Amino acid sequence: MNPRAGILVTGTEVLSGIISDRNGPWLSERLREIGLDPAVIQIVADRPDDLFAALRWMADQNFAVVLTSGGLGPTADDLTAEIVGRFAGREMVLDPRLEERIAEIVESITARWPGLDRAAIRESNRKQALIPRGASVLDPVGTAPGLVVPPTDDQGPVVVVLPGPPRELQPMWKTALATPPMQALLSDLPTYHREIVRLFGLPESEIANTLRAAEQAGLELEPLEITTCLRRGEIEIATRYEPPAQPAYDALIEFIRERHGERLFSEDGSTVDEQVAQLLAGRTVAVAESCTGGLLAARLTDRPGSSAYFLGGAVVYSNEAKVALAGVDAALITRFGAVSEEVARALAHGAIERFGADIGIGVTGIAGPEGGSDEKPVGLVCFTVAIRQGSESTLSARLPGGRADIRERSTTVALHLLRRVLRGEAETELPGVPGGAADPASAQSG
Amino acid sequence: MNPRAGILVTGTEVLSGIISDRNGPWLSERLREIGLDPAVIQIVADRPDDLFAALRWMADQNFAVVLTSGGLGPTADDLTAEIVGRFAGREMVLDPRLEERIAEIVESITARWPGLDRAAIRESNRKQALIPRGASVLDPVGTAPGLVVPPTDDQGPVVVVLPGPPRELQPMWKTALATPPMQALLSDLPTYHREIVRLFGLPESEIANTLRAAEQAGLELEPLEITTCLRRGEIEIATRYEPPAQPAYDALIEFIRERHGERLFSEDGSTVDEQVAQLLAGRTVAVAESCTGGLLAARLTDRPGSSAYFLGGAVVYSNEAKVALAGVDAALITRFGAVSEEVARALAHGAIERFGADIGIGVTGIAGPEGGSDEKPVGLVCFTVAIRQGSESTLSARLPGGRADIRERSTTVALHLLRRVLRGEAETELPGVPGGAADPASAQSG
Repeated sequence: MNPRAGILVTGTEVLSGIISDRNGPWLSERLREIGLDPAVIQIVADRPDDLFAALRWMADQNFAVVLTSGGLGPTADDLTAEIVGRFAGREMVLDPRLEERIAEIVESITARWPGLDRAAIRESNRKQALIPRGASVLDPVGTAPGLVVPPTDDQGPVVVVLPGPPRELQPMWKTALATPPMQALLSDLPTYHREIVRLFGLPESEIANTLRAAEQAGLELEPLEITTCLRRGEIEIATRYEPPAQPAYDALIEFIRERHGERLFSEDGSTVDEQVAQLLAGRTVAVAESCTGGLLAARLTDRPGSSAYFLGGAVVYSNEAKVALAGVDAALITRFGAVSEEVARALAHGAIERFGADIGIGVTGIAGPEGGSDEKPVGLVCFTVAIRQGSESTLSARLPGGRADIRERSTTVALHLLRRVLRGEAETELPGVPGGAADPASAQSG
Repeated sequence: MNPRAGILVTGTEVLSGIISDRNGPWLSERLREIGLDPAVIQIVADRPDDLFAALRWMADQNFAVVLTSGGLGPTADDLTAEIVGRFAGREMVLDPRLEERIAEIVESITARWPGLDRAAIRESNRKQALIPRGASVLDPVGTAPGLVVPPTDDQGPVVVVLPGPPRELQPMWKTALATPPMQALLSDLPTYHREIVRLFGLPESEIANTLRAAEQAGLELEPLEITTCLRRGEIEIATRYEPPAQPAYDALIEFIRERHGERLFSEDGSTVDEQVAQLLAGRTVAVAESCTGGLLAARLTDRPGSSAYFLGGAVVYSNEAKVALAGVDAALITRFGAVSEEVARALAHGAIERFGADIGIGVTGIAGPEGGSDEKPVGLVCFTVAIRQGSESTLSARLPGGRADIRERSTTVALHLLRRVLRGEAETELPGVPGGAADPASAQSG
């Protein structure tokens, strides 16, 4: 078993649910990468007693490392550095070089807010230059410095003190790893491989069955640490193992590939978004979407550089907009309804036409909670991906969940359909995507 | 001080950072609503020892209530019910009514997946009908039942055991409150008011200054429990207080209103999204957006019933799309550049024209990381809101952060500009939104 580590997230606004913590999960992944086992993520308020009690408890659990996030700002309730100092038995001393550095940063930021009391701000930022004696300072990314505080007399955990904003914390993590206390610790750890594969079109329970079947077939799974989860409608299998277990891992993937075929769409950890960006290879794409309301265009433009292949989208919520913006024949809407495969097809071709794109995607469906009927229930979504003067593929899916789920999963289905068309696998069905209105049980899926 | 409560989130996939926990923050808000103080959110893996140790620790802290989420599924690593039973000193017994109920639910779900081993699934779901003797059962929302487990001999906390998926956990919370152990506990608690106000266009540090100033001005803040946070570019101030402190709260809000004027845009907790939906009052809106790539349309269609006022959007990423889809004069783009107030204005009017809308919104900017210049740096975004044959308002902002931040904050700025125009406050500037390219220091904001 690897040395264990604890993550201590501080902040009343995180604990009270006003903002959600992104640092705990991120740090947890980083710990696993370097071969430490994250044993707990604990979120406490900015109260000295709670903070100190949590540190004590983590030390009692013999954690080798404790990471803290938050509580490094200039205000009075930012007290992580001081509490960690007390916990480690180190007095607080002023670091003049750090004080200078913080003053520079604060000056450059406050310059744009006229009328603030600069002297008061500098004073309160001085507090941030007080550090436990013997700690390594991590230079500020925003205004707050981080710290790596070694234990006194080699008793207790190394405490890595990081700021709360993710965009400050994340770059600082690398710097923290380079400090002497972390280097000493890392030199004793085994190295790990960590691989991710992704499947689309399976219920999560089926993966548990697959792992059981692999075991029954005699595959050696003990040296593999396997985590599965459902994310955005896809199943992700993350596996961590030491290098000698490579054959065991390869055998597992071979087993999954044989059992699930096409549904295993990524063996190298790439997402469907990345694969689609790659597969487009110079071709351009445009969308005409209804129920997803812009989310499909937003997802396609999420990646830097997407302007190389994404031309644009029409968010055609009203029927009039479907006709005017995407060139859908009004008669089609009258005859088949706005949510129909016929209209999805017209939207895809309209996108090609209007944007001059090589590939068009059309999406129309009922995201709910209103607007469903027996024939066309909430969750019914029709998709078409068409290549200009080439193949096209259309399907209807019945997606589970509430409005937000249906909208988000629709973008996932659209991307998978696009992927298959780009790979020349144009079919009228995605394996494992539950079909249209004819299948009432599918409404219950989770 | 109120009784304290702990939240225990289980799940290896949550701890390992593969999925992020939404239940802890949500439950924390619910606890505060009923007058309990959430003292900690703790995330542990599905390991019996870790789970038991966390429960023990929370009991040692004298928490009145512990809420758990997750670990109620049918697989072997779902063991929360059993561990909680052991912790409470209650043996596990089969609840035949519950077993029947779960069998029905599972049958209806698995019907759509051909080729699954139904008998094996029913068997593994039987485990979910084992409950600690004397516990109140919370009927399944998905397939997993919840539990409310009272302490034996009134020693230790009431443990509320809830499933992991938020859409199952959230409806179950109300049922949990209605159980006898929770009712007994609630009858002893004081009632609270909880109010939220929102500001836009201020740095978060300025709110700390405001609270200090309020104190110096002699306002009574002790009976108010105030939490502030920055969310989506807005500042949220949440205050909890007992009814006698109403005058103190009113005085504080009056103080904030005087000091920050228009920047205090919500005194009743309503979001800018809700306000805009209200203010539209039958008028229709359409957007033509570039750098936000569909996010503005997606945000406007986030709310159920948005089809009543949202007609559609054009996501005009390429210059050709700006001309073809939003009717922007190509000469404008050549002369002023695609990112310019002139093009933002043309986009807004193009949206009105193309969609036949009463109000049009145009957004164009540089989300980065590429595409910036000295004159037009990354983060520069131009906005116009125009009313058909009526007033219009245009502004340029320099938004901080990375690509995702810039895209998201752009939607917030657009909604605030829309709000002001709808209220007849058309101006060329939003208070506190840092202006365009002329202001290099604004790049550092955070």
